[in-house]
Amino acid sequence: MNLNSLKEEVCNANIKLVNYGLVTLTWGNVSAIDRTEGLIVIKPSGVDYDELKPEDMVVVDMEGKQVEGKLRPSSDTPTHLELYRAFSQIGGVAHTHSMYATIYAQALEEIPCYGTTHADHFFGQIPLTRLLTEKEVEEAYELATGRVIIERFQKLDPLSMPGVLVASHAPFTWGKDASEAVKNSLILERVAEMAFATVQLNPESKPVDSFILKKHYTRKHGPDAYYGQ
Amino acid sequence: MNLNSLKEEVCNANIKLVNYGLVTLTWGNVSAIDRTEGLIVIKPSGVDYDELKPEDMVVVDMEGKQVEGKLRPSSDTPTHLELYRAFSQIGGVAHTHSMYATIYAQALEEIPCYGTTHADHFFGQIPLTRLLTEKEVEEAYELATGRVIIERFQKLDPLSMPGVLVASHAPFTWGKDASEAVKNSLILERVAEMAFATVQLNPESKPVDSFILKKHYTRKHGPDAYYGQ
Amino acid sequence: MNLNSLKEEVCNANIKLVNYGLVTLTWGNVSAIDRTEGLIVIKPSGVDYDELKPEDMVVVDMEGKQVEGKLRPSSDTPTHLELYRAFSQIGGVAHTHSMYATIYAQALEEIPCYGTTHADHFFGQIPLTRLLTEKEVEEAYELATGRVIIERFQKLDPLSMPGVLVASHAPFTWGKDASEAVKNSLILERVAEMAFATVQLNPESKPVDSFILKKHYTRKHGPDAYYGQ
Amino acid sequence: MNLNSLKEEVCNANIKLVNYGLVTLTWGNVSAIDRTEGLIVIKPSGVDYDELKPEDMVVVDMEGKQVEGKLRPSSDTPTHLELYRAFSQIGGVAHTHSMYATIYAQALEEIPCYGTTHADHFFGQIPLTRLLTEKEVEEAYELATGRVIIERFQKLDPLSMPGVLVASHAPFTWGKDASEAVKNSLILERVAEMAFATVQLNPESKPVDSFILKKHYTRKHGPDAYYGQ
Repeated sequence: MNLNSLKEEVCNANIKLVNYGLVTLTWGNVSAIDRTEGLIVIKPSGVDYDELKPEDMVVVDMEGKQVEGKLRPSSDTPTHLELYRAFSQIGGVAHTHSMYATIYAQALEEIPCYGTTHADHFFGQIPLTRLLTEKEVEEAYELATGRVIIERFQKLDPLSMPGVLVASHAPFTWGKDASEAVKNSLILERVAEMAFATVQLNPESKPVDSFILKKHYTRKHGPDAYYGQ
Repeated sequence: MNLNSLKEEVCNANIKLVNYGLVTLTWGNVSAIDRTEGLIVIKPSGVDYDELKPEDMVVVDMEGKQVEGKLRPSSDTPTHLELYRAFSQIGGVAHTHSMYATIYAQALEEIPCYGTTHADHFFGQIPLTRLLTEKEVEEAYELATGRVIIERFQKLDPLSMPGVLVASHAPFTWGKDASEAVKNSLILERVAEMAFATVQLNPESKPVDSFILKKHYTRKHGPDAYYGQ
Repeated sequence: MNLNSLKEEVCNANIKLVNYGLVTLTWGNVSAIDRTEGLIVIKPSGVDYDELKPEDMVVVDMEGKQVEGKLRPSSDTPTHLELYRAFSQIGGVAHTHSMYATIYAQALEEIPCYGTTHADHFFGQIPLTRLLTEKEVEEAYELATGRVIIERFQKLDPLSMPGVLVASHAPFTWGKDASEAVKNSLILERVAEMAFATVQLNPESKPVDSFILKKHYTRKHGPDAYYGQ
Repeated sequence: MNLNSLKEEVCNANIKLVNYGLVTLTWGNVSAIDRTEGLIVIKPSGVDYDELKPEDMVVVDMEGKQVEGKLRPSSDTPTHLELYRAFSQIGGVAHTHSMYATIYAQALEEIPCYGTTHADHFFGQIPLTRLLTEKEVEEAYELATGRVIIERFQKLDPLSMPGVLVASHAPFTWGKDASEAVKNSLILERVAEMAFATVQLNPESKPVDSFILKKHYTRKHGPDAYYGQ
């Protein structure tokens, strides 16, 4: 079992999250999965980003049992695991409290697709989970957070909608690997800030027509993709 | 045919766009034209900015046929070409998804001239194109984007109004060369942010009087220019 | 009496305040207390941050009498002292005019807990002091500033609520030491900015349920803490 | 006549304006006066800040006649001169198009004193000039800009109110020397941003009581000053 390159990838992805300006203090974490081995590599709990080294990364199995690492895994690990179990095509997960995505989560609003920047990367309105019940919060908070995401995605495709807003909390994003999950965190944050200011400027703003959404998404993704700025 | 210096200029202009904070990930591109040869040098598609080198630049002719370069040209190339064909005096074109210019494009609003910062550089309200039809989007999206810009400029002078907002999309700017096109992207972004906050502060804000607009524009541009801060 | 390590800690904490982007010019100060000796180490008055050295720190006793240091202590020293006298468990105090916390203080509004970012660090709505009377302002302004904070905390626990907004002025935060006080200044600023934009986006936004507040706070603080992102 | 140290001071002050983030491209300028010689040192016109050297500074007399320097003086020189002629106690003048001060100028609103950050530095509401008439704009625009500032200050003290908003244009600030003029530009910008967001958060916000204004201003300025954070 050689997870060294995955540890390095996850460590770098966590640092990139900070360099993108998406993280205050330790408010963020990235993980990646080795589907063959059924093992997840994730950031350790509460470590400062400027001291983060690949060998600090923690390895857990699909049930959350710690397999490697001297430090404890991020307390958000149960949420990451739930996403890997439910979305079999994803390889990386990122979580931040980035300013504008978090603001939408706090305002309990989904992010409408107001333009092509959004349409290029997320195929439709960014979904918001329901609020957790008191029972869910008390019993297994982080696991329940994963479950309300899955619940919200019953009719959504996690590949064309690689992110979600957890109500009153903050965003999670994912992708084929840790690096793509982080990139989607950055895009979600920009799209959220643009949407926020769009409705401040013009409260009557409407989402783009569905043919625009489809054109933009398919020119970047899928078999007929040709796009690259 | 020696396009090396133009490639270097276009490469530098693309990098400047990033240094000005106008670009997230790869969301932007700059081109320049050699009018004598009828050749356009443009950023390649989807390459990271921190790896961009002059020799990566792509050369296409006025019809978009690739003449030089191993990489594909930016997928926005047809829009750039349409601008070069219609605006015979321009030498460079820049495209970004910069925050506030894009917000105006998404809110489907033109940017009124609320002050002298705007008046110094753009002679009047920043124009907005009409929305594309479904047919235009399906058939030749990037070309149609260029065409609605030209359509919007039927009664406008592209030299005194060196930029436009493409509805639901983002801005394009231009200038006598790539460097000036990039500078105009930066100015448009600042002017857009100022206009946004001006109407937030005072929703009754009115554009400046036409004599202010004329004074500011002509002291910086044209035969009687004397301005320099 | 060896206060050298405390001076270094306080100097570093003051510099961190600047690096976090919470300070314009000299608008901020941090202190720490040696409870055994009854001595407070605080930033000197009006010194530029980029010239700040540990040996510049000023030492005063609990009544404000200067014990060490060639420079005068920060003019906010009486406020710091009042906090140390009233809140016996705290070891450090920080004061800034950071943008969004100051805006809430100016708007005379407390900061509701709109999400888990807030709930992770402050156990409830961030309190606002009452306005000072003319007499208080004239007689002993900085001392009175401390006193209205204490007055506001009559039914609050300074450990679970490590910060306050002084009406028309700006925030003070504290913690077990200078470093934690500074960290709380940063968190308060982020929480304030998020709250500001949350109500801009959705003016009907409501604070989170009390069970969310309790869960988030207790998983990070107290005997059952397990949290770490 | 040795103006070398003043040239260095003015050059550094211009560069500081940029480092404070108050200037886009070349949108700003700083000058200082040698009252004994009756000579003003000012930034040259349209030169990039990163190439600015002390020997590039231009020297003009009180009537604007160029005395030294190969480059032309800033086109805003007539405004600076008018300020030096009318405000005999000032030694430096700064002009920027900084974001929030400019937004207030564009919205044609004065900046109310909503808190102590403002009160510490500007003794009252930041004044706004009247709009220029068409005749004034046509005949001697930059001189008229100076004149409407003086007109607005008929009942104001330029020392306790070291800045102004020129309607539809942008701010000018001043001080005992170039460095203080630049510092006041920075403070004005922060105060403007705070005021902007204060009214966004609470449209009913009221200016601070006059005793707060007086206390804060006099503890920092004048014979009884004791303040220093």
